Amino acid sequence: KFSGSRQLVTLIPGDGIGPEISAAVQKICDAAEAPVDWDPVDVTPVKGPDGKFRLPQKIFDSMKKTKVGLKGPLETPVGKGHQSLNLALRKAFNLYANVRPCKSIEGYQTPYPNVDLVTIRENTEGEYSGIEHLIVDGVVQSIKLITEPASLRVAEYAFKYARDNKRSTVTAVHKANIMRMSDGLFLKCCRQVAEKNKDIRFREMYLDTLCLNMVLDPTEFDVLVMPNLYGDILSDLCAGLVGGLGVTPSGNIGEDGAIFESVHGTAPDIAGQDKANPTALLLSAVMMLRYMGLGDHARRIETAALQTIKEGKILTGDLGGKAKCSEFTQEICRKVKELE
Amino acid sequence: KFSGSRQLVTLIPGDGIGPEISAAVQKICDAAEAPVDWDPVDVTPVKGPDGKFRLPQKIFDSMKKTKVGLKGPLETPVGKGHQSLNLALRKAFNLYANVRPCKSIEGYQTPYPNVDLVTIRENTEGEYSGIEHLIVDGVVQSIKLITEPASLRVAEYAFKYARDNKRSTVTAVHKANIMRMSDGLFLKCCRQVAEKNKDIRFREMYLDTLCLNMVLDPTEFDVLVMPNLYGDILSDLCAGLVGGLGVTPSGNIGEDGAIFESVHGTAPDIAGQDKANPTALLLSAVMMLRYMGLGDHARRIETAALQTIKEGKILTGDLGGKAKCSEFTQEICRKVKELE
Ligand SMILES: CC(C)[C@H](C(=O)O)[C@@H](O)C(=O)O
Ligand SMILES: CC(C)[C@H](C(=O)O)[C@@H](O)C(=O)O
Repeated sequence: KFSGSRQLVTLIPGDGIGPEISAAVQKICDAAEAPVDWDPVDVTPVKGPDGKFRLPQKIFDSMKKTKVGLKGPLETPVGKGHQSLNLALRKAFNLYANVRPCKSIEGYQTPYPNVDLVTIRENTEGEYSGIEHLIVDGVVQSIKLITEPASLRVAEYAFKYARDNKRSTVTAVHKANIMRMSDGLFLKCCRQVAEKNKDIRFREMYLDTLCLNMVLDPTEFDVLVMPNLYGDILSDLCAGLVGGLGVTPSGNIGEDGAIFESVHGTAPDIAGQDKANPTALLLSAVMMLRYMGLGDHARRIETAALQTIKEGKILTGDLGGKAKCSEFTQEICRKVKELE
Repeated sequence: KFSGSRQLVTLIPGDGIGPEISAAVQKICDAAEAPVDWDPVDVTPVKGPDGKFRLPQKIFDSMKKTKVGLKGPLETPVGKGHQSLNLALRKAFNLYANVRPCKSIEGYQTPYPNVDLVTIRENTEGEYSGIEHLIVDGVVQSIKLITEPASLRVAEYAFKYARDNKRSTVTAVHKANIMRMSDGLFLKCCRQVAEKNKDIRFREMYLDTLCLNMVLDPTEFDVLVMPNLYGDILSDLCAGLVGGLGVTPSGNIGEDGAIFESVHGTAPDIAGQDKANPTALLLSAVMMLRYMGLGDHARRIETAALQTIKEGKILTGDLGGKAKCSEFTQEICRKVKELE
């Protein structure tokens, strides 16, 4: 649906270093001659007539038109009642699968040189239901909500993702030994979908055992699918294995659109100083271009970025170098243009 | 309360390799002349008059007498309605704090040579409440229960543990940005206890961020305190950093007793073959001896075990050697006797 002429993409530059790294990504996409135009949107919540804050109408209008967004880091306004803006966006567009590939980058030193896995997180329910009660003073309950439709949907996405990306195994991650009914339902749905996808190997593992095995040997893992909170935890853990959130991309996939985002913070301490590392947002844009059917542009940008890191000559501070964000960006642009 | 004459300890040898490693630990305690006698108990559930399975009366009688237990791995009987025996014991004796030190062992190769931290897990409630409901077909909720008394109790234990063990920092681990009320209450309790323990530094960290930082640099962590499920996850993750459950001890501490246990599996494939590694259970016994006020015996056993691993000559298979469990045990006994 995205092939043919130029496509419009919703751009949420974000806060702190967001605008700089967004500009860097735009430059690199231009250098790759990606047929993409950008529709920049500020998502700062606005106060409605009822006094409540909401996402501005502009983001709904834009996403309705474009169906695809790229998003930098957002600062959630401090104060009671403000839900995380990141979550608000996932919810507003029903982005049910949170996809985070973690792949070791050659030349970027970590104890784990051969990681290549993908966490796929149910993105709409579970521990993120937002339902909590004060039973009596000093006694609180939070509700973890697991439904069959959401579990089936994300499991189906995981198997489809595995097949489309030529991956061999999907592992369902759970604590059905403890939460027999909720994680039990999630697991049952995964098994059910696995039955219909026999070309992909299916495994199951307890979350705790998986964390242990993950740090002992992450190379034994491939595609992982799991409820919301477990995905939050595991995706950060796996990002750590390959060097942190500065180099890991993510995508939030829905039935009627998708938003790709860097999940690192806004780094206010270095904002506006041309020091930020645009890699996570750039690799998120690479995921986005592939999603849009622009695989060739994606490949060239990815190759140029990874090659730049591998060479290790022109790197931002957090990557171990001394280059400015603009110099790093320029070097990637140069390489992109050289690549076929 | 444990000083003076010989003390009786409840021994739950467990299943699979449990009996072998328990015998090994008993031998080593004897070699150290620890003033300890053992009361072995089989905890296989027995069917009551109502048809339900329960822990046998003998374990209650024994623990009432001894107040302290050492436990090998248990196989939970397969089939509906059987709760994990490990959990059943924690519950039966109200063992509210699950303490798992993770310390890198010299000579035992992992990517993380300098880990030295302790996870302290609330052991009675949270996601382990066991309360779940089927709302309608395909919609399930699990209840995470957080109470002020249990949160205060484990937080107080964490600060006391830090002080007693000359540790500098307690970090509360939470997702209060998502579970504002439940994790919010847990965090509030930790803050409250921190206020009364200003000699210990207090930090707070999101669970996901902590996992990320943990694999990037575990040396920045000291004592960690957290709700039940997070402790389950983190303790396994941290065990992985120092080589896995074969070398990490644990203790379940209650107001009126404690059970120390190795948390690895029963390893049925090697059971009865004199191949098992008793280190985790032995280091759990070391924790137990310290708890009983037998610090000197604890120190000698610990030193002998770590020295044996460091030398790397007489090691069981999983530790990278070719020795039998009995040979490894004998070597530790020999060293224990040499130490003052
Ligand atoms: C910002 C926060 C609410 C969010 C989450 O918990 O999902 C983040 O950790 C993430 O993983 O995207
Ligand atoms: C055996 C299992 C029920 C248990 C748990 O989930 O607590 C185990 O993983 C542990 O950490 O002791």
